[in-house]
Amino acid sequence: MSETPARYWVGFDLGGTKMMAVVVDDAGKPIARKRRKTKAQEGAEPGLDRVVRTIREALEEAHVDRSQLAGVGIGVPGPLDPERGIVFDLPNLGWHNVPVAEALRGELGCPVVAANDVDAGTYGEYVLGAAVGARSVLGVFPGTGIGGGFVYDGQIFRGRHVSCMEIGHIRVLPDGPLCGCGRRGCLEAVASRLAIAAQAASAAYRGEAPRLLAAAGTSLENLRSGTLAEAIGAGDRVVRDLVVNAARWLGVAIGTLVNVLAPDVVVLGGGLVEAMPDLIVREAEAAARAQAMPAFSDTFRVVPAALGDDATALGAAAWARRAPAAPRRGESGTSLVVD
Amino acid sequence: MSETPARYWVGFDLGGTKMMAVVVDDAGKPIARKRRKTKAQEGAEPGLDRVVRTIREALEEAHVDRSQLAGVGIGVPGPLDPERGIVFDLPNLGWHNVPVAEALRGELGCPVVAANDVDAGTYGEYVLGAAVGARSVLGVFPGTGIGGGFVYDGQIFRGRHVSCMEIGHIRVLPDGPLCGCGRRGCLEAVASRLAIAAQAASAAYRGEAPRLLAAAGTSLENLRSGTLAEAIGAGDRVVRDLVVNAARWLGVAIGTLVNVLAPDVVVLGGGLVEAMPDLIVREAEAAARAQAMPAFSDTFRVVPAALGDDATALGAAAWARRAPAAPRRGESGTSLVVD
Repeated sequence: MSETPARYWVGFDLGGTKMMAVVVDDAGKPIARKRRKTKAQEGAEPGLDRVVRTIREALEEAHVDRSQLAGVGIGVPGPLDPERGIVFDLPNLGWHNVPVAEALRGELGCPVVAANDVDAGTYGEYVLGAAVGARSVLGVFPGTGIGGGFVYDGQIFRGRHVSCMEIGHIRVLPDGPLCGCGRRGCLEAVASRLAIAAQAASAAYRGEAPRLLAAAGTSLENLRSGTLAEAIGAGDRVVRDLVVNAARWLGVAIGTLVNVLAPDVVVLGGGLVEAMPDLIVREAEAAARAQAMPAFSDTFRVVPAALGDDATALGAAAWARRAPAAPRRGESGTSLVVD
Repeated sequence: MSETPARYWVGFDLGGTKMMAVVVDDAGKPIARKRRKTKAQEGAEPGLDRVVRTIREALEEAHVDRSQLAGVGIGVPGPLDPERGIVFDLPNLGWHNVPVAEALRGELGCPVVAANDVDAGTYGEYVLGAAVGARSVLGVFPGTGIGGGFVYDGQIFRGRHVSCMEIGHIRVLPDGPLCGCGRRGCLEAVASRLAIAAQAASAAYRGEAPRLLAAAGTSLENLRSGTLAEAIGAGDRVVRDLVVNAARWLGVAIGTLVNVLAPDVVVLGGGLVEAMPDLIVREAEAAARAQAMPAFSDTFRVVPAALGDDATALGAAAWARRAPAAPRRGESGTSLVVD
């Protein structure tokens, strides 16, 4: 009797500024990583080439032969058709209606699934992070925008041929600040890391955040999550107030989503949360419980993510490894052809 | 060979002012109905007696023997534990933590399932109404409050031991009108039939809605959906403006829910919509499409409900008739014991 050869999966996190491939073994354990800059706005073809190259290098580093590659899962930073693996629109990357699953399958010769990055990250937290054992999990990841993910009944929640959970565009403040989507008062226009950074830069410019000003100036590229956390630690009270205010808006949106979805675990993730988990989780949770109806007040936990930068890649690998769901009515599930 | 005896189901709609039992045959076709006033605030025990009496009389009228009763589904106007069939709180009816499924099962000797009334109504529209064939269905039923329902993957969507879709308490207008829940600016405080009626009564009082004033005065009990529709038909422009404004707020909330849930069909139901479906569906749909993200703009239809007053009862009967879902992790599915 010959031994069954070991099988491996790759999880891929396609970000706006960097990409990462993680090779995992049959138990989901990461055994090699490869990172690369995304080089945004190169367009889809050079972008896909970089993805394939990064995956191949990660496999080499892991000493995994192509024949042992059982599947690839890729998380992408935007809406997509998760059944067909077609990415609709990644303006930062210059991608438009890209059949990413089909393209990678052609290059790598194995099954490929695609998911929204925050859906993949939430699934990762559900399978091996902060939400193991949950009935359903809401993921909230504030960054440049605010991404949402939802796992229901052990599956990534989705529409018919479209991912969803675009929670950054819940309108929390009519006539509020202008959002990148062209509307006003969206959650991400008041509570994303970028929204906090823009207000913190104003405060620094006005002389109200001297530690932040000294450390990073007023340019938004320099106002990363860690910089904000350090300024708070050093005593810039106004920066703390801005973070608290944003966390409360996150909580208002979370409470609304609890009333609608009744998740039993809410996972807060991303770099901003990772830089100051206690402050953000505490404020967001309090606001969420105040917004949730009494019937839901004891039905959910709010927790920080546990997988850090690995959440999307590990979740995408786990999504590729899972037993596929039965095909649904009106969905082919296997076709990779663009409509 | 003996013929298999025919089997029947009862769907029950427990409303705040009236209750209705509908007997359906093996094909889901209604064959008898019995209505009764709810007599709110009598409390749970007399209330359950009235429910049982109403069901028995409907069975008699249908000439269905108790031995032919295969199951009962009941829709209740509030949050509940749908697995255990325990109603949490119906303040209008004086019910608190009532194990309604267990109680009815004891009296009727057949399986009983319970669901939120709008969830049941949405399921009814999915099985035999305006949303047949949908991948997922969002139900929006404005009345005294605003109820929501959601059918996903052929099942009523729910939390762990709690129903959800409390869309009436999406906060659309911070610092907006006071809501019955104690918060401000909830959707139902600006867009329910009651919210419209209160503003229409003010307009009538100020002399701005002469047809409404002549037909119904300024007492909210008299300002039913039909009355509002007639005043609009007779030329009370301000009443029309109020309905349009409410429909637009409904649309804002629907667009938000489309961004989050990506339903492919949105069903608008209840008496208000039934009284003026064209006006409300058109305005709500336009606002929903303006609020939805581009990725979702072509992914959903907005339609008026097709089952009218029968939606909840027929949906509850269909829910009782369905093949039960597999038990989920951490849920007993059969226990009817209060925690």
